[in-house]
Amino acid sequence: MHNEHILSLMTSAAKSAGRIVTSAFRTDIDVKEKTSHADVVTSTDVASQRNIHDLLLEGMQKLGYAENEIGFIQEESSSNSVRQHNFIVDPIDGTTNFASGIPFSCISIAYAASTTLRLGVVYDPFSDTLYSGEVGNGSCVESLRFGKKSLALQHKPIDDWIVSAQLNGQDENEVAGQFATYQKIYPQVRGLRNMGSLTLELCLMADNVVDALYNHGSFFWDLAAVSVILREAGGELYDIDARGQVLEFDWEDTQKKYRLFACRPEAQETVHRFLPTRVS
Amino acid sequence: MHNEHILSLMTSAAKSAGRIVTSAFRTDIDVKEKTSHADVVTSTDVASQRNIHDLLLEGMQKLGYAENEIGFIQEESSSNSVRQHNFIVDPIDGTTNFASGIPFSCISIAYAASTTLRLGVVYDPFSDTLYSGEVGNGSCVESLRFGKKSLALQHKPIDDWIVSAQLNGQDENEVAGQFATYQKIYPQVRGLRNMGSLTLELCLMADNVVDALYNHGSFFWDLAAVSVILREAGGELYDIDARGQVLEFDWEDTQKKYRLFACRPEAQETVHRFLPTRVS
Repeated sequence: MHNEHILSLMTSAAKSAGRIVTSAFRTDIDVKEKTSHADVVTSTDVASQRNIHDLLLEGMQKLGYAENEIGFIQEESSSNSVRQHNFIVDPIDGTTNFASGIPFSCISIAYAASTTLRLGVVYDPFSDTLYSGEVGNGSCVESLRFGKKSLALQHKPIDDWIVSAQLNGQDENEVAGQFATYQKIYPQVRGLRNMGSLTLELCLMADNVVDALYNHGSFFWDLAAVSVILREAGGELYDIDARGQVLEFDWEDTQKKYRLFACRPEAQETVHRFLPTRVS
Repeated sequence: MHNEHILSLMTSAAKSAGRIVTSAFRTDIDVKEKTSHADVVTSTDVASQRNIHDLLLEGMQKLGYAENEIGFIQEESSSNSVRQHNFIVDPIDGTTNFASGIPFSCISIAYAASTTLRLGVVYDPFSDTLYSGEVGNGSCVESLRFGKKSLALQHKPIDDWIVSAQLNGQDENEVAGQFATYQKIYPQVRGLRNMGSLTLELCLMADNVVDALYNHGSFFWDLAAVSVILREAGGELYDIDARGQVLEFDWEDTQKKYRLFACRPEAQETVHRFLPTRVS
């Protein structure tokens, strides 16, 4: 087992990509539309991804793995491959924030032995904060300001909750459902937030800041790393399309779109209850 | 005219209060309800306000002003006074964020000669970013990462906009109106955000990050300083309760609640159009 070395390699790659992201931030960024004007990509996403890919591949070979054993599932890549050792990479989660000048986005890298997730690293280059987790071995957060600490979710009553109320997609009915959920939950909680990075907001859940989160348009690369971090902290991702059951990743379809909510397990029923019945 | 010295005094006071805020952040904070479970105050708000009050009073006396010439309008104070020289102080804008562990809040201090606003300072202690403005003399932002630069709003097409979609109050109809606005504007723009500090989100507007903002529950102390900064950058605050006309502060009622939107003047009609007709 090389988990410790692989985790260290992932951390270096994420921090290296972080320097690319912060260097380009608030410069004259070229923004291209993907599926709509609200779904964008920049040349920095591509540069960050290439940097991570090359560092992981080189590092794994130094650890003794052959190139043809190593697979990559990456956001900005159509040719994804699943092999004995796989990295699931989001070079910038929160690209809209990055492109618009909001300093809240992150780099996300997960490692899976075959199709079993083992390690997750999420790095926020703006606050220099690293979240990491290893299946069976817990998760932690590390920053200059707060030092290093283990992550473990604590109970909070609903009127103290912060809800991450994300908005996704352009389908009118789907969007109406999201607004209906948020309008229903708003009077019950301390505050709704939409900060623009699914992955970082799930890290804030692992750190007891965010208490419930809804997202209707996420992908494997957004979720893989933080799923390890959040689950090791005692939180869970639930699949709206599977009647609120625990979310499982589909390794056969690595481009699959997920609709999910996340919270502490004891809050699952409460959080599920705010979804429109027709979507749950 | 002592404007330069008063601005420097306000900046020192804001930075001093910033240290109080960051020191208390993510410690065991005592949170008290004000009007509801979603409207809170902490002992850090009170400590920050006392610190600012004392530093301003002492500093003004050193500049040769008599104590009885100096008035204070402060968020956490029922005895507000208007005199020849007035400071309008929000010791923490974004208290919910602060209390919940989200590092996005600020200290806001404005100065008015009698009832004419002259100076505004907003300090984000988490990113060490200072926004300041002087009526007739422009506004600027200064941080370690980006240096110092003047603020001047630029045109952006609506499909590139970031909209600050704030939620306020507990009245069901009022809240429904806010959701209706956001649901209407969502498909037109790049993204909606709710980051939890009205004042800092208006500073982000002055810095060309946020393009339109709606808020249905703000007060003099939230708005005074940033109104100078935003207006000097070429932006404007509009009063929803005055049919979308330019917002004017009511010095007779310093506890008045404002419902507003903000944007570049050429976007005024567009931004106003998304409000429900019954509230505009």
